Amino acid sequence: MLGKIALEEAFALPRFREKTKWWASMFATDTDKHTAEINDVGPIRLDFAERHGVGLQILSYTAPGVQDIWDAKDAQALAVEINDYIAEKVKAHPDRFAAFATLSMHDPQEAAAELRRCVTQHGFLGALVNDTQRAGVDGDDMIFYDNEKWDVFWATCTELDVPLYLHPRNPTGTIYDKLWADRKWLIGPPLSFAHGVSLHVLGMVTNGVFDRNPNLQVILGHLGEHIPFDMWRINHWFEDRKKMLGLAETCKRTIREYFAENLWITTSGHFSTTTLHFCMAEVGADRILFSIDYPFETFGDACEWFDSAEMSNTDRLKIGRENAKKLFKLGAYKDSTA
Amino acid sequence: MLGKIALEEAFALPRFREKTKWWASMFATDTDKHTAEINDVGPIRLDFAERHGVGLQILSYTAPGVQDIWDAKDAQALAVEINDYIAEKVKAHPDRFAAFATLSMHDPQEAAAELRRCVTQHGFLGALVNDTQRAGVDGDDMIFYDNEKWDVFWATCTELDVPLYLHPRNPTGTIYDKLWADRKWLIGPPLSFAHGVSLHVLGMVTNGVFDRNPNLQVILGHLGEHIPFDMWRINHWFEDRKKMLGLAETCKRTIREYFAENLWITTSGHFSTTTLHFCMAEVGADRILFSIDYPFETFGDACEWFDSAEMSNTDRLKIGRENAKKLFKLGAYKDSTA
Amino acid sequence: MLGKIALEEAFALPRFREKTKWWASMFATDTDKHTAEINDVGPIRLDFAERHGVGLQILSYTAPGVQDIWDAKDAQALAVEINDYIAEKVKAHPDRFAAFATLSMHDPQEAAAELRRCVTQHGFLGALVNDTQRAGVDGDDMIFYDNEKWDVFWATCTELDVPLYLHPRNPTGTIYDKLWADRKWLIGPPLSFAHGVSLHVLGMVTNGVFDRNPNLQVILGHLGEHIPFDMWRINHWFEDRKKMLGLAETCKRTIREYFAENLWITTSGHFSTTTLHFCMAEVGADRILFSIDYPFETFGDACEWFDSAEMSNTDRLKIGRENAKKLFKLGAYKDSTA
Amino acid sequence: MLGKIALEEAFALPRFREKTKWWASMFATDTDKHTAEINDVGPIRLDFAERHGVGLQILSYTAPGVQDIWDAKDAQALAVEINDYIAEKVKAHPDRFAAFATLSMHDPQEAAAELRRCVTQHGFLGALVNDTQRAGVDGDDMIFYDNEKWDVFWATCTELDVPLYLHPRNPTGTIYDKLWADRKWLIGPPLSFAHGVSLHVLGMVTNGVFDRNPNLQVILGHLGEHIPFDMWRINHWFEDRKKMLGLAETCKRTIREYFAENLWITTSGHFSTTTLHFCMAEVGADRILFSIDYPFETFGDACEWFDSAEMSNTDRLKIGRENAKKLFKLGAYKDSTA
Repeated sequence: MLGKIALEEAFALPRFREKTKWWASMFATDTDKHTAEINDVGPIRLDFAERHGVGLQILSYTAPGVQDIWDAKDAQALAVEINDYIAEKVKAHPDRFAAFATLSMHDPQEAAAELRRCVTQHGFLGALVNDTQRAGVDGDDMIFYDNEKWDVFWATCTELDVPLYLHPRNPTGTIYDKLWADRKWLIGPPLSFAHGVSLHVLGMVTNGVFDRNPNLQVILGHLGEHIPFDMWRINHWFEDRKKMLGLAETCKRTIREYFAENLWITTSGHFSTTTLHFCMAEVGADRILFSIDYPFETFGDACEWFDSAEMSNTDRLKIGRENAKKLFKLGAYKDSTA
Repeated sequence: MLGKIALEEAFALPRFREKTKWWASMFATDTDKHTAEINDVGPIRLDFAERHGVGLQILSYTAPGVQDIWDAKDAQALAVEINDYIAEKVKAHPDRFAAFATLSMHDPQEAAAELRRCVTQHGFLGALVNDTQRAGVDGDDMIFYDNEKWDVFWATCTELDVPLYLHPRNPTGTIYDKLWADRKWLIGPPLSFAHGVSLHVLGMVTNGVFDRNPNLQVILGHLGEHIPFDMWRINHWFEDRKKMLGLAETCKRTIREYFAENLWITTSGHFSTTTLHFCMAEVGADRILFSIDYPFETFGDACEWFDSAEMSNTDRLKIGRENAKKLFKLGAYKDSTA
Repeated sequence: MLGKIALEEAFALPRFREKTKWWASMFATDTDKHTAEINDVGPIRLDFAERHGVGLQILSYTAPGVQDIWDAKDAQALAVEINDYIAEKVKAHPDRFAAFATLSMHDPQEAAAELRRCVTQHGFLGALVNDTQRAGVDGDDMIFYDNEKWDVFWATCTELDVPLYLHPRNPTGTIYDKLWADRKWLIGPPLSFAHGVSLHVLGMVTNGVFDRNPNLQVILGHLGEHIPFDMWRINHWFEDRKKMLGLAETCKRTIREYFAENLWITTSGHFSTTTLHFCMAEVGADRILFSIDYPFETFGDACEWFDSAEMSNTDRLKIGRENAKKLFKLGAYKDSTA
Repeated sequence: MLGKIALEEAFALPRFREKTKWWASMFATDTDKHTAEINDVGPIRLDFAERHGVGLQILSYTAPGVQDIWDAKDAQALAVEINDYIAEKVKAHPDRFAAFATLSMHDPQEAAAELRRCVTQHGFLGALVNDTQRAGVDGDDMIFYDNEKWDVFWATCTELDVPLYLHPRNPTGTIYDKLWADRKWLIGPPLSFAHGVSLHVLGMVTNGVFDRNPNLQVILGHLGEHIPFDMWRINHWFEDRKKMLGLAETCKRTIREYFAENLWITTSGHFSTTTLHFCMAEVGADRILFSIDYPFETFGDACEWFDSAEMSNTDRLKIGRENAKKLFKLGAYKDSTA
């Protein structure tokens, strides 16, 4: 399929090249290649896109990024730097690149203001945030956005009518050290990513964020970070708890309704037709969006899978492009590869 | 379907009635009813079974149970008491009840010895353990069984040729307090249970427990605690890591092979045909076992769902009974309801 | 779900009561009940709808109906009588009933004219035709509509912008007698219906009807009369044949494209979640429409199944109502039960 | 996967080379290649098998074969010639080739006797018959095997404990001419094959063949010739008919029971994971067998699909080899490629 839109596509700041390389050494098969790919916002990426039928890439700063910086001032400064950097890059190829804002999440007002700046001045399509924000004197605290304090931020998202992509980051701090250090191979895509994001977004659901911000749109990668698998079980438990124990006070709708009205899932890093079909049955093809997770995954793996996965033409177009056009109001978008 | 076998079916000691009732008040719709049901190992349960076509119930002590007791001596004493108690109860209805051993998991040798006693003297069919063992002076430590120290225990399981059911328990201790306190509705079935068990069992997989104990059989409830959903993604990540980063040293087989050779999943508390069909495609009907999770779930909900869920007769028989007969060597089992 | 729209719902002319009863004796469990139900276009039907959340029923004349009448004049007269009869009935409950035109299919021009009359004068939403038209001196001939002669009719459908429901009818004539007489239990829903309609509609596909009438919309009942099951196989065979043997001359698109752009399937008489999920994967939820097949099936069976079948809220709304609103331009439709 | 067993693999007699070539011209992309491949029972086939991990091929005479010969004597003579020919060929590679008997189906006793000869003297693993037998002076009649007259034949199958593969053949005779001539692209795999075999085998089901021969095993290709798609609908209709109209007299079990106890389906010519997963849910992985349909399909298409299709290791082994080993009692079979 030509003209696909992809929306979990990472870049890094070239000035952190050495740090990027060191980070890559913990998971990448070829650290030099990875470093080159994540620092490129031009020919490498465009060439892959051309070869694999990706029309538009929505770029975001790589994890853990600003969420790893527990000094609030430093975090904000870096976010601004990243946003201005990628805004320039995107301008050079406005038909092929778009961007999500990078945000320091130390303070809701500040995050809201930077999001507004990015959307109104740079034309960004929303924001991508890497799970919880590290904070505290030694970075051991974690700021969650699932409480009332953050309503000012969520209200800004809905006012600007842009979605937020809740992306995972690696577990950090003593709270996690005991759990993950002895089973290090589970850090990242195999388990910890889904643990982090599922806790955070279901916290938003049960703490009333979506009830107080009914138009808020949040995107989850990796086909939903395990949640669709337990949709029945979560729904069954929640609905019983609502009848007797007060959950209904902060969580008025059913989990399936939040997935139909507020949540989206992408295929990033999860190229399984069986799981996709399951999500089509549980979540519905209208809320699924194609994505790659480049450069942690390859354009080839993602696109060859998606283009040949068994599904109807209608759903392939929706998941591959049309749903994203609706979500991001890209009605006028015409991709040269499509 | 008549003659079903169910294997995540909880009982409590009647002498803890008040504590059971208090515990039930945190989640149950009717605490008196729950308390009566969990304390009964006789007419209530047998009547439900009769009405819903359950031939054999494999009983286990309710969570968190002995895993909640951080004093090693107390834990062991309680485990022995529970095992002797349920052994008596089971003897009264040997054609309708069987039992899993309850184990203190403070010390591998001790756990192995008690398991041996229960299997050889009481005829128990294996053990059920509630995730990690609380330990330390204030109960804040968690003992995982996914390291070499526990090989003596796993070796005993395989020598006795009995499986271990790895059941969830509630998160406890300061390590979890910050995470779960502010999103309390996610504690238990909606999320924390699956987080706990998936971390533990994938720890076993990646730390080599199944490679060192290739015949070990471990059972997971709730259709696999999210893991089947990410089978492709876990496999994809692991196989890449093996090529370059050393995971192959402790995890020689693929995740799908561990699920085909060492792991089983049950339907306990997850009565979704869509998810079951997905698991049949990903895990295969030969490794799926019917279960209820009584009295947290009802016989009616579980059995009416399972009996009418769309599947082939062959698979219904397998999942409902035949797989369990193979796993527990119940070849001679003839159920009066079947 | 409230406010469902159902579109394979049969009525008969009361003046044929005796014949209807005799016909019912060949398949119905209670011929009197069936006769009463099929002759009612009022309280019985409205009561069922009320109780089961059906907002709008699109009524059509029962099979074999006019397609069973091999005298062209008689056929046309009966079609007109039926259309005028049901138009009156529908007028009495315009918010609960709508109708498909009944057509004599002896002559394309005549069929087109009667369709135009029904749509423009009676406000009918399209037509429902029972497979082939019996013809010839003894009714042994079968008129198919999959050849160029019928383009004038199909052009009228697209000009009026209304769909045609291709409904099965029983096999008749010496051509079928040898095949079906000795295996009479396969006549109707178990097999012959799907054989008839799948041959006819795939004839339309391969003979170019949809290429010459690219906006034509045809509806198939019973989740697509077997065709989705073989989508891969049909596609594989057709695409190879196009490369070398000339099929491409009359069948320019792929079978999946015709299902995405010209065909719709309904759930009539096929209340299987497994099959529905399969169709959602192969055909896509956007082209599936709820239907009952009353009074051959019950409102209870259809609606209790559909309302509780596992799927996302979004897809339930689409299949239950929204797709039909789009297809039939019922934007203003507000159902009192919804 | 290595060591796969394939069981719908066609050969032709070299002396019919010109006829084979003419026949191939109606569907094959390369008639010379096809003719060479179907006439080879040696290096070409063995090389494909080696490259694609097929351990054992069960060979059968190509359709329409003997079922196309309406002279009973000629048919019998040709069947014997074919059986003796392939017996010789198989002997040369007993670890890589096996055979199904080819049978003239003019007379049940004669067919039974030839089957017995092939199984007892040649070691054939069963028979493959191409739908109905042409008969009558001009070949216009069709002999079905779904009536009591054929019980002597079916009794021989069960006595010898070998299955029969019911393979399609092209529709022939005036009875079909009117239907298929005007929609020629539907002849064969896209539609007519499934129509023929589904009618025949469901005739066997409803006419009591499996009730009178409860151990009879019949294999269907192409994932079951559409029948699994309608399992719910057929079951629903049959069970209602049994309650009131006498079907229960000749069809004592449910359609799902016949599929669990008497029928098998193969993947021949239908390399769709979606459809396979559907069949795993409806029919169960224990009754599904890998097959190719060579040389009408390629080893590459079939094996690359099957080897990489998403499913559990357990089910891949079952469908790829283990189910066939059970059905054909190949316990001792050790494939050099496995």
